[in-house]
Amino acid sequence: MEKAKINAFQLLEKVRTDKPVIHHLTNWVTIYDCANVVKVFGASPVMAHALEEVAEMSAIASALVLNIGTLTVDFIQAMKIAASSANKKGIPVILDVCGAGATALRDKSCLEILDECRINIIKGNASEIARISGLDVKTKGVDANIVESDLKELAKELASKRKSIVVITGQEDIVSDGHNDYVIKNGNAMMGDIVGTGCMAASVIGTFAAVERDLVLAAASGLVCFEVASECAVNKSQGPGSFKEKLYDCIYFLDEKTVNNMQKVYR
Amino acid sequence: MEKAKINAFQLLEKVRTDKPVIHHLTNWVTIYDCANVVKVFGASPVMAHALEEVAEMSAIASALVLNIGTLTVDFIQAMKIAASSANKKGIPVILDVCGAGATALRDKSCLEILDECRINIIKGNASEIARISGLDVKTKGVDANIVESDLKELAKELASKRKSIVVITGQEDIVSDGHNDYVIKNGNAMMGDIVGTGCMAASVIGTFAAVERDLVLAAASGLVCFEVASECAVNKSQGPGSFKEKLYDCIYFLDEKTVNNMQKVYR
Amino acid sequence: MEKAKINAFQLLEKVRTDKPVIHHLTNWVTIYDCANVVKVFGASPVMAHALEEVAEMSAIASALVLNIGTLTVDFIQAMKIAASSANKKGIPVILDVCGAGATALRDKSCLEILDECRINIIKGNASEIARISGLDVKTKGVDANIVESDLKELAKELASKRKSIVVITGQEDIVSDGHNDYVIKNGNAMMGDIVGTGCMAASVIGTFAAVERDLVLAAASGLVCFEVASECAVNKSQGPGSFKEKLYDCIYFLDEKTVNNMQKVYR
Repeated sequence: MEKAKINAFQLLEKVRTDKPVIHHLTNWVTIYDCANVVKVFGASPVMAHALEEVAEMSAIASALVLNIGTLTVDFIQAMKIAASSANKKGIPVILDVCGAGATALRDKSCLEILDECRINIIKGNASEIARISGLDVKTKGVDANIVESDLKELAKELASKRKSIVVITGQEDIVSDGHNDYVIKNGNAMMGDIVGTGCMAASVIGTFAAVERDLVLAAASGLVCFEVASECAVNKSQGPGSFKEKLYDCIYFLDEKTVNNMQKVYR
Repeated sequence: MEKAKINAFQLLEKVRTDKPVIHHLTNWVTIYDCANVVKVFGASPVMAHALEEVAEMSAIASALVLNIGTLTVDFIQAMKIAASSANKKGIPVILDVCGAGATALRDKSCLEILDECRINIIKGNASEIARISGLDVKTKGVDANIVESDLKELAKELASKRKSIVVITGQEDIVSDGHNDYVIKNGNAMMGDIVGTGCMAASVIGTFAAVERDLVLAAASGLVCFEVASECAVNKSQGPGSFKEKLYDCIYFLDEKTVNNMQKVYR
Repeated sequence: MEKAKINAFQLLEKVRTDKPVIHHLTNWVTIYDCANVVKVFGASPVMAHALEEVAEMSAIASALVLNIGTLTVDFIQAMKIAASSANKKGIPVILDVCGAGATALRDKSCLEILDECRINIIKGNASEIARISGLDVKTKGVDANIVESDLKELAKELASKRKSIVVITGQEDIVSDGHNDYVIKNGNAMMGDIVGTGCMAASVIGTFAAVERDLVLAAASGLVCFEVASECAVNKSQGPGSFKEKLYDCIYFLDEKTVNNMQKVYR
């Protein structure tokens, strides 16, 4: 792999200037964190899941983020309606396949959404993405991250099959559209020691996708900014509680020099 | 405008002594913050939304706070039942018209609640209140705050029309019952840079309304205390993450001298 | 009462090594805190409530935590299905009778779950446990904690009647199986001044019960570790906001010497 140069900060500035509305149908565990991370990045989160209003809300948004973490059958129905509205408007739709592989309902719901709607970015950890790809893996709750296969190849194949961008998060993150890909080596272990950073990553990707048509670049830039901030935060914290608070502080004040100096992006 | 003198701290002391139960039907994004802000003010939050129990829960509470942020049709139905029970018992009902103007469902639901129940305090930002007043504005998610009209006049008119107290939050907050009004100039920009302070403000207003029959004074006092604490917090914080934590600390230790010295209330 | 010696840290180490999956059907107010406390203790939380997947999710978990804080009729139905699945697999089921006594729905739902499923640990504050025991007490929201009766006797009787472990939390915590009991005198007043520590305690008990068949020891050990961490946290904090953040830090770094030196367990 060779180092790649992307202008992640330029997109961050565009987020801060444009303040795009990011519509979410997400899980109830991390819903505050998903909203707040969008907010401290400078954009405008909105959470709405009523069947009667999701289409209208997506139509006034600049990106739609779906996360199946605490799914129900009704909630998946609302996701499909929102995604159809987003497709019609032409805004990017991000699907976090949170917990795929844990139950049949999760697998079935993800595949239904992928079959019935146009999903622009599919995001998950290695075992979740493997499951969505049809490989026979078993997740351990929502935390597992170990799959025996070449992750880059896995991302590429699913991206080609689904004609979507695929993001695999983990110690290294992979972003692929089947042809081009980035590997992001920012971040730190503390991100995996608290609840919410995975869901927040999907919201950040949605936020950056709202301001940039090249969705591979948008996803990579969002992850770089989020994870560079996490590296700053871990240095200022005394554990997972203070880390989370500092993460918001560091995102809010993220500047060009920090992003440029610290980003570790490879091809 | 001239400076007004209100004894906001006296009501805070009453909250701390009486520890009123504040029943909420609120949104899933900020539900923890709504509960916790009530708690650190010294009162006792309870969140309950089942159709089968809301009437009973409102009947043991001293105020009811409704927030439509993540509404569904069933949830609005539960709000109406809770509000009717609160009306019967004679406790104040606060409605946060969160996101009004964003979708037809939100507008319709707010108007239904206002028509079918007695709402004592209507609270929103400028664009939300404008929408509820029947003006043709379009919100941008739940964040927009710009409406071209005289805010004080807007509050007054809606208050008279609905025979309610109207609270418009923003850089300056307006509290009006159609005849008397207060303008509160406390607070700071950081409050608008994190998710939750708007919803928390409604919970605080509910908490103060639980201990004071003069609801204009109660709403103004609650906002003063909340926003004075936020000014203290911003001085002790390094960004939006630490601000939120310090906000809870500052509310908890808010004292008479601080409230009296820092409050900026005008007529 | 005489001092008892339990090896709480040994169980904490087992949690950190085994990383058990703890399935929750919990309330929407503190769901993040329930998940995150499990996570910083080193285990793996999963939150899932869809009727179609709860049985499957419980079957891959090592403990099940139920909390009725924001119950609905459907949600109780999902709890019963999850508990039946947990019973079949033989993993411990913890029921937090949050808010019992506040409404008829809460009382009825708790009793139904207790009658229809095998609950291994029943957890509540004094007034909630009194209500579940059939005593005529009236809670004041979810906060009340005063019941006029001997708490230890109360725990013992309910434990014998239901053939469960009973945990009564408060200034002192009581853990009883009807024959053996522990009294834990760790913790501090600040825990009662923020929202969430009660619900978190149930999740911690579930986490420890996942790695130890002696459930009286597991519950006592979990409470000791959680409350020793809270004592460390209060010393490092400036109020309820910073306390919560430090609580996560202190749990994460809890070591053998601290747990052994600070634990106050009696028989």
